Amino acid sequence: RATVIARGLASLKQPSSLFAPLDTFTERHVGPEDSEASAMLSKLGYKSMEEFLGDAVPSKIRVPSSSVDDAVIPAFSESQLLKRARELAQKNKAMKSYIGMGYHDAVVPPVILRNVMENPQWYMPYTPYQPEIAQGRLESLVNFQTMVMSLTGMDIANASLLDEATAAAEAMIMAYVQSGQKKSTFLVDSGVSPQTLSVLRIRAKGFGMKVVVGDIATLVADESLRPLVNGVLVQYPDVNGACKDFEGLAKTVHGFGGLVACATDLLALTMLKPPGEWGADIALGNSARFGVPPGYGGPHAAFFAVTDKLKRKMPGRLIGRSRDSTGAPAYRLALQTREQHIRREKATSNICTSQALLANMAAMYAVFHGPAGLKRIANKVHGFAQVFRSSVETFGFACVNDTFFDTVTVKVDSANVLHKAAVAAGINLRPVDSTHVGVSFDETVTPDDLVKLINVFASAADASPVSLASLQAPTSLSVPDSLRRTSDFLEHPVFNRHHSETEMLRYIHHLASKDLGLVHSMISLGSCTMKLNSTSSMIPLTWPEFGSVHPFVPFDQVEGYHTVIRELEQDLCRITGFAAASLQPNSGAAGEYAGLSVIRAYHESRGEAHRDICLIPLSAHGTNPASAVMAGLKVVPVKALADGSLDLEDLKAKAEKHKDKLAAFMITYPSTFGVFEAGVQDACKIIHDNGGQVYLDGANLNAQVGLTNPATCGGDVCHLNLHKTFAIPHGGGGPGVGPICVAEHLAPFLPSHHVMENPGKGIDAVAGAPFGSASILLISWAYIKMLGGTGLAKSSQIALLNANYMAARLSGHYNLRYKNDKGRVAHELLIDLAEFDKSAGLKVMDFAKRLQDYGFHPPTCSWPISTCMLIEPTESESLEEIDRLGRRRRRWRRGAAEGEQRAEERAASDWNKPYSREKAAYPLPYLKEKKFWPTVARIDDAYGDMNLIVRLICLPALPTLTSISV
Amino acid sequence: RATVIARGLASLKQPSSLFAPLDTFTERHVGPEDSEASAMLSKLGYKSMEEFLGDAVPSKIRVPSSSVDDAVIPAFSESQLLKRARELAQKNKAMKSYIGMGYHDAVVPPVILRNVMENPQWYMPYTPYQPEIAQGRLESLVNFQTMVMSLTGMDIANASLLDEATAAAEAMIMAYVQSGQKKSTFLVDSGVSPQTLSVLRIRAKGFGMKVVVGDIATLVADESLRPLVNGVLVQYPDVNGACKDFEGLAKTVHGFGGLVACATDLLALTMLKPPGEWGADIALGNSARFGVPPGYGGPHAAFFAVTDKLKRKMPGRLIGRSRDSTGAPAYRLALQTREQHIRREKATSNICTSQALLANMAAMYAVFHGPAGLKRIANKVHGFAQVFRSSVETFGFACVNDTFFDTVTVKVDSANVLHKAAVAAGINLRPVDSTHVGVSFDETVTPDDLVKLINVFASAADASPVSLASLQAPTSLSVPDSLRRTSDFLEHPVFNRHHSETEMLRYIHHLASKDLGLVHSMISLGSCTMKLNSTSSMIPLTWPEFGSVHPFVPFDQVEGYHTVIRELEQDLCRITGFAAASLQPNSGAAGEYAGLSVIRAYHESRGEAHRDICLIPLSAHGTNPASAVMAGLKVVPVKALADGSLDLEDLKAKAEKHKDKLAAFMITYPSTFGVFEAGVQDACKIIHDNGGQVYLDGANLNAQVGLTNPATCGGDVCHLNLHKTFAIPHGGGGPGVGPICVAEHLAPFLPSHHVMENPGKGIDAVAGAPFGSASILLISWAYIKMLGGTGLAKSSQIALLNANYMAARLSGHYNLRYKNDKGRVAHELLIDLAEFDKSAGLKVMDFAKRLQDYGFHPPTCSWPISTCMLIEPTESESLEEIDRLGRRRRRWRRGAAEGEQRAEERAASDWNKPYSREKAAYPLPYLKEKKFWPTVARIDDAYGDMNLIVRLICLPALPTLTSISV
Ligand SMILES: Cc1ncc(COP(=O)(O)O)c(C=O)c1O
Ligand SMILES: Cc1ncc(COP(=O)(O)O)c(C=O)c1O
Ligand SMILES: O=C([O-])O
Repeated sequence: RATVIARGLASLKQPSSLFAPLDTFTERHVGPEDSEASAMLSKLGYKSMEEFLGDAVPSKIRVPSSSVDDAVIPAFSESQLLKRARELAQKNKAMKSYIGMGYHDAVVPPVILRNVMENPQWYMPYTPYQPEIAQGRLESLVNFQTMVMSLTGMDIANASLLDEATAAAEAMIMAYVQSGQKKSTFLVDSGVSPQTLSVLRIRAKGFGMKVVVGDIATLVADESLRPLVNGVLVQYPDVNGACKDFEGLAKTVHGFGGLVACATDLLALTMLKPPGEWGADIALGNSARFGVPPGYGGPHAAFFAVTDKLKRKMPGRLIGRSRDSTGAPAYRLALQTREQHIRREKATSNICTSQALLANMAAMYAVFHGPAGLKRIANKVHGFAQVFRSSVETFGFACVNDTFFDTVTVKVDSANVLHKAAVAAGINLRPVDSTHVGVSFDETVTPDDLVKLINVFASAADASPVSLASLQAPTSLSVPDSLRRTSDFLEHPVFNRHHSETEMLRYIHHLASKDLGLVHSMISLGSCTMKLNSTSSMIPLTWPEFGSVHPFVPFDQVEGYHTVIRELEQDLCRITGFAAASLQPNSGAAGEYAGLSVIRAYHESRGEAHRDICLIPLSAHGTNPASAVMAGLKVVPVKALADGSLDLEDLKAKAEKHKDKLAAFMITYPSTFGVFEAGVQDACKIIHDNGGQVYLDGANLNAQVGLTNPATCGGDVCHLNLHKTFAIPHGGGGPGVGPICVAEHLAPFLPSHHVMENPGKGIDAVAGAPFGSASILLISWAYIKMLGGTGLAKSSQIALLNANYMAARLSGHYNLRYKNDKGRVAHELLIDLAEFDKSAGLKVMDFAKRLQDYGFHPPTCSWPISTCMLIEPTESESLEEIDRLGRRRRRWRRGAAEGEQRAEERAASDWNKPYSREKAAYPLPYLKEKKFWPTVARIDDAYGDMNLIVRLICLPALPTLTSISV
Repeated sequence: RATVIARGLASLKQPSSLFAPLDTFTERHVGPEDSEASAMLSKLGYKSMEEFLGDAVPSKIRVPSSSVDDAVIPAFSESQLLKRARELAQKNKAMKSYIGMGYHDAVVPPVILRNVMENPQWYMPYTPYQPEIAQGRLESLVNFQTMVMSLTGMDIANASLLDEATAAAEAMIMAYVQSGQKKSTFLVDSGVSPQTLSVLRIRAKGFGMKVVVGDIATLVADESLRPLVNGVLVQYPDVNGACKDFEGLAKTVHGFGGLVACATDLLALTMLKPPGEWGADIALGNSARFGVPPGYGGPHAAFFAVTDKLKRKMPGRLIGRSRDSTGAPAYRLALQTREQHIRREKATSNICTSQALLANMAAMYAVFHGPAGLKRIANKVHGFAQVFRSSVETFGFACVNDTFFDTVTVKVDSANVLHKAAVAAGINLRPVDSTHVGVSFDETVTPDDLVKLINVFASAADASPVSLASLQAPTSLSVPDSLRRTSDFLEHPVFNRHHSETEMLRYIHHLASKDLGLVHSMISLGSCTMKLNSTSSMIPLTWPEFGSVHPFVPFDQVEGYHTVIRELEQDLCRITGFAAASLQPNSGAAGEYAGLSVIRAYHESRGEAHRDICLIPLSAHGTNPASAVMAGLKVVPVKALADGSLDLEDLKAKAEKHKDKLAAFMITYPSTFGVFEAGVQDACKIIHDNGGQVYLDGANLNAQVGLTNPATCGGDVCHLNLHKTFAIPHGGGGPGVGPICVAEHLAPFLPSHHVMENPGKGIDAVAGAPFGSASILLISWAYIKMLGGTGLAKSSQIALLNANYMAARLSGHYNLRYKNDKGRVAHELLIDLAEFDKSAGLKVMDFAKRLQDYGFHPPTCSWPISTCMLIEPTESESLEEIDRLGRRRRRWRRGAAEGEQRAEERAASDWNKPYSREKAAYPLPYLKEKKFWPTVARIDDAYGDMNLIVRLICLPALPTLTSISV
């Protein structure tokens, strides 16, 4: 029955005043119009939103609506926001940065900018949990993996990590695990970037490891150290630019059983012998210079590749090939059993959100340029560095490194004087120390830029300025012969046939056409908050004033960014009720780790470093226990009662039992069962009474804004998923931002960053860049500013209403597993499908696949309970869409077994199913108008894990020109 | 057999110098790499490109390669171009314009900006000639038609015209035709915009009509005029802002058999009684303020709507509903028999390219805002005008008009003084005369803007400045009661259910998913030049510095635009060999009209106004004869020889016969048969010897650049389709730009524009804006600058090579209808399928539809010869893609009858075709990986024309809230 609502002339409110803006965001963000919301409320038996909220949210934890309204966070209309963003953009100084240290400016090929980065088909989907409707981005991630394997010469690569620094930490932990957790010293070369060192230091702490930094050759030569060493990390080329031969080192380290990890640079590897060819066990780094501008720190995709023997210990998501039910090849997430959502505190990986969108951009960059194009870019970057070096040498400067790819470190009389002169010329150099500066080149440097740069040095040396015409291109490489790359790379056709824009465009759109995303229909993935990612919040992101800023520039150059950061921190504090925030963590899981580390530092500051027990409910997301372990905590599980709520008795008993060692309690609120528990404050009190701190997992904050908040619930620290509640698009599995907000007493311990001015006295950095993935903070900033406090609160209210309305539509047909004493759920709902297994042998996945036939992305499956689906509609879905899913779900209660389909099968000549083709493909009439065809049939997971293939199939050689036939 | 070419490390050229840019455009634009081009050449039996060109292009007409190379047009790399565009953008002064006159700034909803305007799925396809694979944009154009009908209250509307001024001219001609071409006076109210008057004047000339301008009531009262009058044009509201009641006028005019045309404003019609309700026969205007910023003149979609009785005389494209072979509803181009491509010189319409993309944007704007949202915008605009008016009245200014929607004309002591003060405040007012200024409001005006504007008047009157707080919102409308709109509008659900961004986004992507475009595969539409529309050339277009410029601002505010315009004119002159250019015409057909009018003016200047014979080959595009008639010329057809070339004997005979009255000869070169004829210079000489001028239709210029040019061929004037050769995307059927280039002796007659400074002494304006669709000139400018002369020439060379290679692949399998004496075609080829009709009853359309099953857009069908297909691959297609089509075409020679498919049928339970489903859907294996499913089956054209339905089906009323069921 149609539920189109009359939305004609009468339905839209006239603005309050002639002078009020008309392009207000709330009505564009929130799906149901006011008249529809009223209808839904009355269907649920309520006269007002307030009455409904009274039943849904425990009154004890409610905060006054004035805590988050337009008076505290005034609303900007869309055009007002864009104007303000434009003003702030202008407040970032346009400088040319040669700072390097792993961050480079990059040219985004326009075809990739527009058709990937700015295309909702690519940036809006979630992690490809449902591979049948995600073959496009899965193939692209396999391109990424293949590219990394090919360039690094390693056997296997994952589909991205958060950044180079955390990737290095993962390597270190891998080395530790590889030693059977017996050897706890990790050696790090002094050529490794300082921000990496900082992250290694803190991450070592959780495992009681020791990081020793020094000249790696000297350290390894120390025989007394060797028995304790699980591995080493070198950087290639190193932070000062030098390209060193580590082949001997690798032999030595392998000799005493250690692993060799190498932080490296994909562009340099087009010219340098790849780590896989000289014996590295792990290669890692940052792929950003493949078409992802620095954005004041991120996001970008780190890569991580290992030798075959380490593959089952590798962190992060891995895409592998398998086959579908017709035997056709198909991609899907491989080896998921390694991941924290299965292994919890025993996981070797704590990556949930990673950097899929940025990995796809980097992969597409390689597809577009191909091996020859990349090589050409590398030659240019190297050539510029060479010209720079020989020029400054003629002025009398000495360069520290003889070998280099793109970076030269120059000895100067006074670095200060040089920096001043450079800044005056619009140039940032790398501050090394008082008598050295670093200069790194990237593909964006133009000949004019080069001349300007050289002339800063000319003038410092009182030499006469050079002109472009006077510069001589070098005739040989500045890379040692022994380190020159001789092997081919990127030989697969995908990297060799998409070099014209037309071919590239078609490839990008072809892959996109395979994926079902938010541009098609609701993605009610519980706990993922797949809400609108508005266009206006995405627009400033790709302005060069935000894109090309290096993360380590002086603060006085980034007033625009700092305003956004300050305002966002303030607003998040208002929303959470906390006192201070750090935007550094690059994902929810990283936020958890940061928050727990803050708690540990707090205990330590009070002489209670021994507190190391962390209570975690069984229903918690897998990242929670995994993070706890990484922070050096011991996990003690807490039970739930039959109604899904926390077993306060059990909590109390365990808190008291571990009283002296209790560090923290981690709780998700509303719980992962989709209910606001009334006892949350009591639970927190129990913890506090026993000396512990409360960590609130804020993944479900979308249920809370303006209604309650983590501080009021009793938490001391929480992380937020800006990529959920605050509308950063999920990018097909990242980027994310997982800021933490903390109460007053924890504020001094928030992460510092030692490359930045006034690093603070907090814990070591948890990410490579001081403000994490700074550029996408613009999205959440815009989201908050455009909704304003009142719109934010309304969004949470409608999120609750949509979920409860959906629950009502399904109840009677499905077993709603948990609800509160008033019969209400929070912002998501858990339905249990166990009965169907009993009655008809139908599993959760059968329902999931059948939903695809109806054009819907399945909800979260078998989590947090294996027989359940967790459904979160969010506030952005309209009544019509919710009704559409509601009707479908009621229908496929009856017909789940009717069959799953793919387009190809549908045209197959023989059809031997017990139901008609038509019924399978078009179970309902609307599908004749709007049908999404999955491109493969149901995929066989086990087969793929047993026969692990994670790269594109490599043809031995491409056919040559002679094969053309007319 | 695979023809993937080794494109590995060796294949890409290293740049000439370390300092050369790497992001050079030519290699991104041109499909085949150099190694592939060599292979293709050798397959054709040539050792070099030069040798091939020697056979393909007659040597007599070749120009030296130095005429178009990097020395004359230096090449910018993509990033250099974007930098230069950014600099030029900054040279347009950011002003707030209140000039009005039919041009308004507009807010593009970001979701439409990104997902329509900046989305190649929407901007790259061609006119929906193949409706089965174009249902998305067809539906959107029906939305446009429905929106226009609903807002104007008319019975039928077309799918856009070029601009308001030419739409008014079409109305005038319709009135003339309606009078049986007997009454030749057309009355125009003095409230009509001056640029419209200018276009009316010149267009009247061709038909020997008289345009009388004055107060319409007075004119109509003149009984002596009435017998001569075929119709009247009024503007509602008029250019000065007044809203007049024309109901009485309409009665009077109908009384003496005339038609009433009304230029109007869609936004005003949300508030004003629509023309259809007070008796207008024709309503027309500009839809730009529905989300299409002015762009210094365009592009934007004009609308044109008529009463039912006039529908078969309506100009322009019309989309109608029909049914497909399964009986399902489907859209397609309706009543094509009215159009010039069928009716040629007898056509009532000369619209080929119109403004589809902009019509789609305007329609989407209405879909997004819905009736209530539009009304809200109208209220704001009106309210601001009211506040302005009452404010300036308190300063003592008198306003000329008591009634208004958005425009107020103010009497001042010295307009000059006021303009100076306004400009100093960053404001442009409309110059009316020395004692009046005009002020028009649009939705972009903010309260701050309003205050600033009012204070310009305050200060001129020595009054004290106002503040926002002091401004009072009006309480009643300034529209006469009798003219208030009382009827509802936009009641169809499409305008009432897509008001959240999520819903809008899904609707846009749903429609896009139905259309096969250049993002999928080659579109080898002969004569349409579907080449790459590069992203980098599209990027500057949507920068506000180019978008929000009013076309009538003083020249000193648009240095950026004027640089682009000057450079583009120069480059086009270099390329064509001509002396001067006009960028004013908004399409190829409009260019033809302009060029012929220039020729007429030239003859007139020499006392030879009587020259009115135009020779046109039978093979010419239908727009040629239609344009000739519009320019007042009589068409005399010229025959072709059996080999497709012009019959020079016949030409000579006819030229001599009409010697005294010969005005012009129109020729397309290379001819529409796809061959360079050697005799072109001889033909031109014949014409010149007999006192005529040569008009060269430059639609095929893509075959010529750097090889020959229209001047060398012997032409005096040519038009170019910037939307073909110079890479403006086709937008699904527009926008286009059809500039004309002329020899020295014709330069003085190029179109003027009387609203602009120094209008020149040329013919009257042929379009509403001085530089036509100025903003998209950026695209062609960027295209030319990025390729540079050498890249431009290379593009033409590869276009020839691709076509000849394709011809070679098909020959032996298909009858290649024409080639030159060396066996070569030009940039396109004509294959004749007549034999298949004889042998198997297969028509051209059977082949076309079957090609869709292979994922290809069919080539141009049955034009210029009914049994033929005209195939133009363009230089942007890679060897691989050409081979793919080549193989397909050879295969469907055998299998054309195997069946055409649509997704729905494929799943139908019963299958009664003589071939298998599988064979129908997947005739070749690559289709399993990449299959485009048409959304409807073959469409019945005749049925649709007999049962003409051109709007969305209107539900009587929307179901109300009570229908929700849980
Ligand atoms: C409850 C909960 N906590 C933590 C996380 C981890 O967040 P992230 O994926 O950003 O690492 C998730 C992610 O889905 C979650 O649902
Ligand atoms: C040969 C020729 N002349 C003129 C035109 C008309 O150009 P436009 O569609 O821009 O009016 C066309 C359009 O396809 C054409 O092919
Ligand atoms: O568009 C054409 O009619 O060729």
